[in-house]
Amino acid sequence: MAGAAPGTVRWMGDKGVLGLKNKALSTGVALGVIAGLLATAAWADAGPATIPASALSSVKELQKRALAGSGAYEVVESLTTQVGPRLPGTPNDAAAVAWAVKAMKDMGLQDVHTEAVPMPGWRRGLERASIIAPMPQPVAVAALGASVGTGPEGIEAEVVRFASLADLKAAPAGSLTGKIAYIALPMARTQDGSGYGEAVAMRIAGPAAAAKKGAAAVIIRSVGTDAHRTPHTGMTRYEDGVAKIPAGAISTIDAGQLDRLLERGPVKMKLVLDVGLLDPITTYSVVGDLKGADKPDEIVVMGAHLDSWDLGTGAIDDGAGVAIALASAKLIKGLPEKPKRTLRIVLFAAEEEGTYGAAAYGKAHAADAAHYVLGTEADLGIGPVWQFKLKSNANAEGAIATMAAALKPLRVIQGADGEGESSDLGPMAEAGMPVAELSLDATTYFDIHHTADDTLDRIDRPTIDQSTAAYASVLWLAMQAGGTFRAPGTK
Amino acid sequence: MAGAAPGTVRWMGDKGVLGLKNKALSTGVALGVIAGLLATAAWADAGPATIPASALSSVKELQKRALAGSGAYEVVESLTTQVGPRLPGTPNDAAAVAWAVKAMKDMGLQDVHTEAVPMPGWRRGLERASIIAPMPQPVAVAALGASVGTGPEGIEAEVVRFASLADLKAAPAGSLTGKIAYIALPMARTQDGSGYGEAVAMRIAGPAAAAKKGAAAVIIRSVGTDAHRTPHTGMTRYEDGVAKIPAGAISTIDAGQLDRLLERGPVKMKLVLDVGLLDPITTYSVVGDLKGADKPDEIVVMGAHLDSWDLGTGAIDDGAGVAIALASAKLIKGLPEKPKRTLRIVLFAAEEEGTYGAAAYGKAHAADAAHYVLGTEADLGIGPVWQFKLKSNANAEGAIATMAAALKPLRVIQGADGEGESSDLGPMAEAGMPVAELSLDATTYFDIHHTADDTLDRIDRPTIDQSTAAYASVLWLAMQAGGTFRAPGTK
Repeated sequence: MAGAAPGTVRWMGDKGVLGLKNKALSTGVALGVIAGLLATAAWADAGPATIPASALSSVKELQKRALAGSGAYEVVESLTTQVGPRLPGTPNDAAAVAWAVKAMKDMGLQDVHTEAVPMPGWRRGLERASIIAPMPQPVAVAALGASVGTGPEGIEAEVVRFASLADLKAAPAGSLTGKIAYIALPMARTQDGSGYGEAVAMRIAGPAAAAKKGAAAVIIRSVGTDAHRTPHTGMTRYEDGVAKIPAGAISTIDAGQLDRLLERGPVKMKLVLDVGLLDPITTYSVVGDLKGADKPDEIVVMGAHLDSWDLGTGAIDDGAGVAIALASAKLIKGLPEKPKRTLRIVLFAAEEEGTYGAAAYGKAHAADAAHYVLGTEADLGIGPVWQFKLKSNANAEGAIATMAAALKPLRVIQGADGEGESSDLGPMAEAGMPVAELSLDATTYFDIHHTADDTLDRIDRPTIDQSTAAYASVLWLAMQAGGTFRAPGTK
Repeated sequence: MAGAAPGTVRWMGDKGVLGLKNKALSTGVALGVIAGLLATAAWADAGPATIPASALSSVKELQKRALAGSGAYEVVESLTTQVGPRLPGTPNDAAAVAWAVKAMKDMGLQDVHTEAVPMPGWRRGLERASIIAPMPQPVAVAALGASVGTGPEGIEAEVVRFASLADLKAAPAGSLTGKIAYIALPMARTQDGSGYGEAVAMRIAGPAAAAKKGAAAVIIRSVGTDAHRTPHTGMTRYEDGVAKIPAGAISTIDAGQLDRLLERGPVKMKLVLDVGLLDPITTYSVVGDLKGADKPDEIVVMGAHLDSWDLGTGAIDDGAGVAIALASAKLIKGLPEKPKRTLRIVLFAAEEEGTYGAAAYGKAHAADAAHYVLGTEADLGIGPVWQFKLKSNANAEGAIATMAAALKPLRVIQGADGEGESSDLGPMAEAGMPVAELSLDATTYFDIHHTADDTLDRIDRPTIDQSTAAYASVLWLAMQAGGTFRAPGTK
């Protein structure tokens, strides 16, 4: 999970946060809207979504099997151990694509293929920071994604603290010339991750804001809720026509230390971020289908992202989502009852760096959005799933109630009526695809998110089994349902 | 806290673990034993330790004040913020000595002075490790203290795993030529820290054992109980006549990853430890007294160590001990009742690197051991204190019962009869000084111990206040007692 928080914008991905959704995707979205209009007639005849009794019987078996050992842990174990960190453009990224293709083929998915995703290249090298005055001490730092580098020799400058991005923006022009701007906003811990949306703006917009005031570099307090020396990386965004300055995140502990020192007097820091932009690269999303027997052209899609940041091994972000998706498909395939509609698994490329995989998928498939019955994605950790949400209407309300009842044994509550969140499926949602949200509990997610601690050690088997049970249930019920989740007369 | 665990050897410091106690200290200890003999007559006449009622009344006030805010947190805050990490020979080390002298003088201690401590120099530079095959991924590593370096270019070699030090020692001679030996023993979590003593042997003796088999370098699973990417440093020991090879600790998470990869096939690693030995240096212990009004020559001593490892800021190891000692002295000084005996605070230098401060203090003062009524030290974190121990005998048993009763309101239990643990006070204990142990709860101590996470963030105010209340109580009661804690007829 890369960008804004659930609850704040519909798209969780960087694309929404970065304000790019009407730029890179304009073609795809426009096509999608047209396709949606064209498809109206088909769904207009479909009638309300109805879930047959046999599907409800099978869902009990599905949940029982998932809770007894969904296989999701083993998927994360394999991905994070054999492939490790998955920064686009690295050998690990290519290995992840090969791993995903093999995993899908091994479990018998059909039409397994990759889809090319063009994007800018970026590399991370040596990162070191230290306070050099008043007393020397090391500072744990990580470059923000897409940051330009300081060069291996680094820079030395006085640190100027701002309590928030707004305070930085209010600084007089030129007041930071040659200085390191430091934005110190802490992040709040919440179950729905909404604290992230509040804090992440400094990461996205901080560098450009600091550059406008003349700063030589910018550091932010990590956007995270932990107290460890593990900084949280994540994308930043430069603005056209504004100088690109090196940007890093320091750990929350180092931020606290810096705050205490700055209360006592001036602080000088050395910052080495030997990172930088590279030539454009191509990475790949991986797609596979479990074909429906009755209506193979009607698609229920589940998304997760295959790429990860490179400090950890991307276990919770988003190895967990990949595992929930693949384990759900395998569990559904193993049921005695045959699927009616097609289940599509899309493991998106390059979500972290700006939902490039989502953009490419939208561009290629939004025109076919009418074929998509329902979509859901998993990109907020291992769970448990605590809430189910799907926008209600006269066609959907009965099925929503049935799904919610089916999820109750898993301790999943029904959320207030509203759009489900999506990031990688955002372009498809924009093109008219209904999105079901299975809210993953994010209370501790941002302790680990985008840090070196995002490793297999964070995957709790019973928790990810519950999440897999919930996702598989909703996917299965949508696959077996007749009718549509779209509102009557959708245009 | 540097070396073996409480419960396994009487001295917790590296000195005990390193087997040096009969070498560097032989002169001092011999003098101490002689002094002990000479002083027998004085203590022989003293009679049983008896605690007056006024002291018991004052101890209630002492505890009340400590629990209301002992001031210990503020001491750690100042030391870790203004001085930071305190590796001997660094500017921070010199600043720590100046800080301690000022702190003691500011609170009105007398005869505040430093005592020189000669020791070998060592520096830490860039440390980086990565798995380079089968797939590249970074490994979080820290050099062990006193390790020789790999040079900045590092070494690349295959990793050979051993489940324990014993397994490594059993490897055929020459079987590790050119390889990196990896010792994978996990550490058990215990309240008394005894898991440390079991695991730390691989850190101390692993490099020499690996070198004997021809290894080019050695890495160990961090001696720690956490699951974070923060490796645990700590001293190692080379053997005379055996090649010195670079030695590092990898985080417990990286160890788990390495274990999983090695189950699947060969692993090649790159290891850069740009560290190394320097010329001998001199550092300083800091000593200050709160003089007794009645018997100024009879000393109750409290020890802690001023130095720290350099990855964190030495908050729990041993900023906490420094704070408990200084806050206890200040609380005792603030009581309306005047102290009878002298309280001495010794902030030892260079405990982590091999209890060099303890050796120097022993050499200088063991001959005067007869003047020491009782000693105690704090070097196992912030607490709470859960147990009180002091070797019983006909002279001590009454006072022990009185002290234990006085500690009961703090939820401190009385331990089984036995010697109290000591590390920095080890040489004085060897010379006959009774040692009271206030057992600090070590359940979570080794999550943080010797890592970059050893920072102010780990200091919980109510917990360190309770510990300070307990230490101050025992110090105070010993200061006000008449008689001796030594056995009748001690020779």
